[in-house]
This record gives sequence, structure tokens and C-alpha cells, in this order.
Amino acid sequence: MANQIYLFSLVFFSVLLYQSTTVLSFQKSFDLQKPCKRFVFHLHNVAYDGDNMDNATSAAIVNPLGLGDFNFGKFVIMDNPVTMDQNYHSKPVARVQGFFFYHGKAKYDTWLSWSVVFNSTQHKGTLNIMGENPFMELTRDLPVVGGTGDFVMTRGIATFMTDLVEGNKYFRVKMDIKLYECYY
Amino acid sequence: MANQIYLFSLVFFSVLLYQSTTVLSFQKSFDLQKPCKRFVFHLHNVAYDGDNMDNATSAAIVNPLGLGDFNFGKFVIMDNPVTMDQNYHSKPVARVQGFFFYHGKAKYDTWLSWSVVFNSTQHKGTLNIMGENPFMELTRDLPVVGGTGDFVMTRGIATFMTDLVEGNKYFRVKMDIKLYECYY
Amino acid sequence: MANQIYLFSLVFFSVLLYQSTTVLSFQKSFDLQKPCKRFVFHLHNVAYDGDNMDNATSAAIVNPLGLGDFNFGKFVIMDNPVTMDQNYHSKPVARVQGFFFYHGKAKYDTWLSWSVVFNSTQHKGTLNIMGENPFMELTRDLPVVGGTGDFVMTRGIATFMTDLVEGNKYFRVKMDIKLYECYY
Repeated sequence: MANQIYLFSLVFFSVLLYQSTTVLSFQKSFDLQKPCKRFVFHLHNVAYDGDNMDNATSAAIVNPLGLGDFNFGKFVIMDNPVTMDQNYHSKPVARVQGFFFYHGKAKYDTWLSWSVVFNSTQHKGTLNIMGENPFMELTRDLPVVGGTGDFVMTRGIATFMTDLVEGNKYFRVKMDIKLYECYY
Repeated sequence: MANQIYLFSLVFFSVLLYQSTTVLSFQKSFDLQKPCKRFVFHLHNVAYDGDNMDNATSAAIVNPLGLGDFNFGKFVIMDNPVTMDQNYHSKPVARVQGFFFYHGKAKYDTWLSWSVVFNSTQHKGTLNIMGENPFMELTRDLPVVGGTGDFVMTRGIATFMTDLVEGNKYFRVKMDIKLYECYY
Repeated sequence: MANQIYLFSLVFFSVLLYQSTTVLSFQKSFDLQKPCKRFVFHLHNVAYDGDNMDNATSAAIVNPLGLGDFNFGKFVIMDNPVTMDQNYHSKPVARVQGFFFYHGKAKYDTWLSWSVVFNSTQHKGTLNIMGENPFMELTRDLPVVGGTGDFVMTRGIATFMTDLVEGNKYFRVKMDIKLYECYY
């Protein structure tokens, strides 16, 4: 019996020690190929040009400064529909609300902060994506830094690919959102 | 004794296996009713109108574009006091510094990013709240994505309720902040 | 043997119970002195003055409102080099892309959201820092709320110290970035 109590203590405190080490360093690893939730969809942005009020989903609130030829300083506010396929006329499954701005002096480059807002029978809640978006690159990763509702306390990675750009009027972005921390 | 070593190994590696599974998926759950910290207070916003410099706590830096009738494009910077009760004249317990903007074409709707800054004998540090804030809804949840000082590495949910709106001059918001990850 | 099965169960379920408690409350602690990764470097900001297009790394997109004497309302977009030492001419090891704005009515005070973008043989990926930056204080902490690439899912604290300010033309900030959650 004494042996067993000793054994119990040994195991129990080994585990505590192991855990506190884990907590001290947070040096974990996880499999990027296995998100706990994943969404792939398409965002549509129709820029306001002064004449398309009915269709516009975004508008520049500050125009480019003239520092270089790549829209440096242009600041855009958006409230964009998101669809499951590439068709702009498909039923939206979410909206993306937020802003982006251009900060490239010698090339096109943007920075953004977006909320993906779900309000359907399937999903209710928001995801927040933010950071550098060098949209001339084929794919770029941005962090998902938080969420609410079905996505409370979530985190992960959003991979963006530009589907289509039509001048300054329209663009479509494929968003591949992978969550690695899920509570519901 | 051989048995006991076997038993020890079995238990220890079961625990390791269990833990690494947990870490691989992060598919945990927690009780939303039991935050590790909670604050309820009231934020006061007095808009600058050109004539109230002494009282103003926020100011629009970009005016509405005229895209719809709901202030689309209005961008506001703020440095607002926060009090424990609804009285604007109560002693502030924190300040909220950050910005919000209107992005609704057919209804009032805002997006925000705010730091709650504590600098009292009770609390020192900051909390960061960001995301979609559809303020015409009775309550809305926004994620708390990080913190510093007493709130280092924190995360959680802030639930906002509008207490009072006086035209474009003043509004007061009840903030119910629930933290689910606490280190101090 | 029965004893041992009993013992095994006792230990195993103690551990499960212990773990689920941890998960319910997230009330952990960790050692702020022991980050899993740390970077110390210097950010250089050269403000655009209309005449220095070749050198400028940032530009105001909205000018101060005139609410007080501390630049309230000035909103700056930046794409700044980061070096290992204080020398502006050293080879950049990263860039910081994002924005900051002034929100102090009676003193200088800023709020910012920045991505640190690494693209070298040593590091690839981004870190995101955001929040209140009272830059007249000797040091200030801001939360690191997420990352990508080598810094996927990271979190931590960035401590900023102003190295040098040359009027409105140039400033240099020492960034001491401590990550407490590392996966790679």
C-alpha cells in the first residue's frame, strides 16, 4: 500500500510538473493540415464611383496622396457580401465588414482589418482577420485573432487568393479560413 | 515492482497521449457563464462639434460621404472616460482609446477597435476589443483579442448595450467585459 | 490487480478532472521573464513632407483637426524598415506595415495597429501588434495578438521605447518583442 501511495504521488506530481512546464513555455505544436473548422468562400467588393450607389459595397473615404503610383494613402470602408461560389448573384452566407488601405510606395500593397459576420441558421457569430495583405502575391496568410458566437475565442489562419480584379471597380477574393482553436 | 513500472508507464503515456491529442485539435469547451474576470462599466462619448473643445472626448476625422443616409464613411477618433455607474460626472476608472467608423449604406452600423486603459491602484494594463458593432441591436458581442499589464495575454468577450444616445452629441454604452483566459 | 486497476482509474480520472478544471477557467500563470521567442530591433519612420518622396516611409492621410495642440486627428500610414541596430542605413531585417493616429487633446498620445513582416532566410511570417501607445512614456507594452508563417498562432507582448525623435521628420523606436505562445 505504501508503495502504491508512493507510485500515485510520483505519477500525479510528474503530470503536474509536465503540465506546468507546458504552461510556462507554451511551446506546443499542432497540425496545420487539420483545422477544427474550415470555411472556403468568396468575397465581392464593388467600389463606389459616385454613380453606383445601389450596387456599391465599399467606398474610399480618403483618396491617394500622390506618393507613388500605387494608391498610397487610399483608405476604403467596406460592407461586402460573401458567397459559397464565385457568382456575385449567389445568396450571401456572410458579410465582411471593415476597412483596408494602400501603403505601397513602389508596388501595390494593402493592410486590412475585417470582421466576417455570419447570421444564418447554420452559423451565428463573427471572426476577426487582420494584418498585412500583399495582394499582388498569389496567396497570403493573415491571422484570425478572435471571434464571437459560434466562433467564441477562436483563432486561426485565413489564406486569401485574388479571384478577379476589374480595374478599380470590382474585385473578388477567395478566403480559405482555417480555425485551430474551437470551443463550440 | 515490474507491474508497477508497467502501470506507471501506462498511466504516464496515456496522459501524454491525451494531452497531445488535446493540443493537436484545441477542441476544448469552457463555461461562458464563468469568466475568470469580469468588469461592467459605462463609456461616455462627447462628440466634438467645433464649439465644445473643453468637453469633447471624440471627433470625426472624416465626414460622411453621402453614400446613403446613415453616416457611411464617418470616421471617429476617441479618448473616452469610463465610469462604474451611468453618471458622466463620476470618477473615471479607465479610458477607452481608439476609433470607430460607420459602414452601413441602408442602416446605422459601425466597426471599432478600442483599447480599455486602466491606470489606477486597482488595475494597471490594457484590454483590446475589436470588430463589428451593429449598435442598433440591443446587445452585441465583440472579441477581446489581447491585453497587457494585469491583463497580459487575456482573451474574452465584451458585450455592449447602448445606454443612451443624444443625437450626434453624446452617447453612453454599457460594456460588460468577460475574460476567459487570465494569467494574473 | 484489482487494486492496481483501481489505482490506475484514480490517477487517470484525477488527471482528467485536473485538466478539465484548467480548461474551464484558463487561470494559468507563466513566467514573463521566459518568452519562447524574443526579438529586439529598431523601427525607422521617415515622414513624408511633400518633398522627400524617395526617403519617406510614412505619410499622414488625415491632418490634425485643431482640437488641442497635440496633433489630435492626425492619421498616418506607414511601411517602415526595421533594423537590428540603431543605424538607419543597416540592412532591414523586417518591415512594419500599418497605421497610427494621435488622439490626445491635452498631451501627445497615439494608438496603432502594426504588422511586423519578416521575409528573410531566417524568418518568414508576420506578427500583429495593436493598441494604445502613449509614446511620451519611457516604455509601453502593447499586445501581440496573432501571427502567420513562422509565428502562426503566436501571442505575446511588445515593449516599445522611443530611441529618437527629430521633430515631425523622423523617429526611431526600439521594439522588444516577447512571444509566450510559440508553435514552430
